[in-house]
Amino acid sequence: MNDIQERITASFAAQGLMATLGAHLVSVADGEVQIELPFSERLSQQHGYVHAGAITSVVDSACGYAALTKAPPECEVVTAEFKINFLRPAIGEQFLAIGKVQNSGKLLTVCTGEVRAISGTTHKVIAIMQATIVNVRS
Amino acid sequence: MNDIQERITASFAAQGLMATLGAHLVSVADGEVQIELPFSERLSQQHGYVHAGAITSVVDSACGYAALTKAPPECEVVTAEFKINFLRPAIGEQFLAIGKVQNSGKLLTVCTGEVRAISGTTHKVIAIMQATIVNVRS
Amino acid sequence: MNDIQERITASFAAQGLMATLGAHLVSVADGEVQIELPFSERLSQQHGYVHAGAITSVVDSACGYAALTKAPPECEVVTAEFKINFLRPAIGEQFLAIGKVQNSGKLLTVCTGEVRAISGTTHKVIAIMQATIVNVRS
Amino acid sequence: MNDIQERITASFAAQGLMATLGAHLVSVADGEVQIELPFSERLSQQHGYVHAGAITSVVDSACGYAALTKAPPECEVVTAEFKINFLRPAIGEQFLAIGKVQNSGKLLTVCTGEVRAISGTTHKVIAIMQATIVNVRS
Repeated sequence: MNDIQERITASFAAQGLMATLGAHLVSVADGEVQIELPFSERLSQQHGYVHAGAITSVVDSACGYAALTKAPPECEVVTAEFKINFLRPAIGEQFLAIGKVQNSGKLLTVCTGEVRAISGTTHKVIAIMQATIVNVRS
Repeated sequence: MNDIQERITASFAAQGLMATLGAHLVSVADGEVQIELPFSERLSQQHGYVHAGAITSVVDSACGYAALTKAPPECEVVTAEFKINFLRPAIGEQFLAIGKVQNSGKLLTVCTGEVRAISGTTHKVIAIMQATIVNVRS
Repeated sequence: MNDIQERITASFAAQGLMATLGAHLVSVADGEVQIELPFSERLSQQHGYVHAGAITSVVDSACGYAALTKAPPECEVVTAEFKINFLRPAIGEQFLAIGKVQNSGKLLTVCTGEVRAISGTTHKVIAIMQATIVNVRS
Repeated sequence: MNDIQERITASFAAQGLMATLGAHLVSVADGEVQIELPFSERLSQQHGYVHAGAITSVVDSACGYAALTKAPPECEVVTAEFKINFLRPAIGEQFLAIGKVQNSGKLLTVCTGEVRAISGTTHKVIAIMQATIVNVRS
């Protein structure tokens, strides 16, 4: 896992969007990656909550990197598609996106993701994702 | 349509994320909204292309505002869920997100969206979305 | 729960498609419903495995009835949309579809579903679903 | 196209589910396939309309065969996933499912589908699908 952790850390650091959003990589485990996004007005939709697009961006990255932990070493991953349901408004101090591999084949990896809004010690799941990721030879 | 154009222009301006991404509202028509996103390294994924999350954010907003053009005047809209397929890498000088209403009921509006990458005079569809938006009394 | 179990049993019996497919209701619990589908050549795709459409039909019903266990008593439920990933070919003697409520609001319920292929004592998850169900006054 | 039409006609005839539902293949064109499903009480949900699962089954097959018209000759196709929105109750004498290729790569084909309910001369779109199909060497 050390190689893949380093590889994901370097890849995450190369994602301009994650820096622009203020997201940071929290953990990389075999088949599971967590990314945190602190609240910022810079991420808001029109009511001041965090925009669905920002929430989606971090859980998409979490799913993609979770898939990468299961990919053959000579491969990179590309998101083919995902679907996300928003369960509650994105209100919180922090948002934790968790991507988990549900099945990994030679070619395709299917992940589920969730995003939790954190305020003090309260965690609420605000979004769930189902994503298909493709292994591509790099 | 003048009222709804003003309302959408004001709402778009209140979305911190759209300013953070550098997106701007291009057009508002009955059942169709267009948003443009110029390329920026600040939006990149690890290979320097635009991150799927940024592409998703603008077409989500385009679909949401397209739905708003069909909503009862006393309602706001909230994205319940969407699904997006990425057809090609997001390579281009500009990206044009188009959200269109396919069906609007009292409660739910279903939209399709697409994102075109523009380089010079070349347009290529790089992503397609299918979204469900809820009318909520404001 | 007795009322809702009776109501779901009666509703399931009124679904012509479930009889046509040979599916039967296995269990109804608060927020979770299970439906079983025995293998039949009448359900096949071109290679003799069970068609994705038959698998989808039973897990759609399982999610819908799971949502109904959380709906207000004066409401019925209608599937607004779902997304399903097929993880493996549908090969097995029996298929067990499980629908679970992830979140239920006044208007919308979000469920996840899975389908397991059963051969002897082996269970394999072959499909996962994410569904949005609407409460409608009956 | 003659080869692919014959191949799809033979494959459709081998799908037990299509016969069980009473569906028949209407047309095969390059990138577009149409399947018709006559109303039957055997396909109903609890209110007597056609079950979402039957509607989904035919448009899934239409999208899969549309993808097959674009696949390399040595490949078969497998549905990786799809998402479907139901716009109106499935009320009609006939249902016409249309699958169209939006983009086809070496490995993945993305299709959109729609289902129209037909009563006399009235056509209404009742469902729209977005699907990802994989080319697999046969």
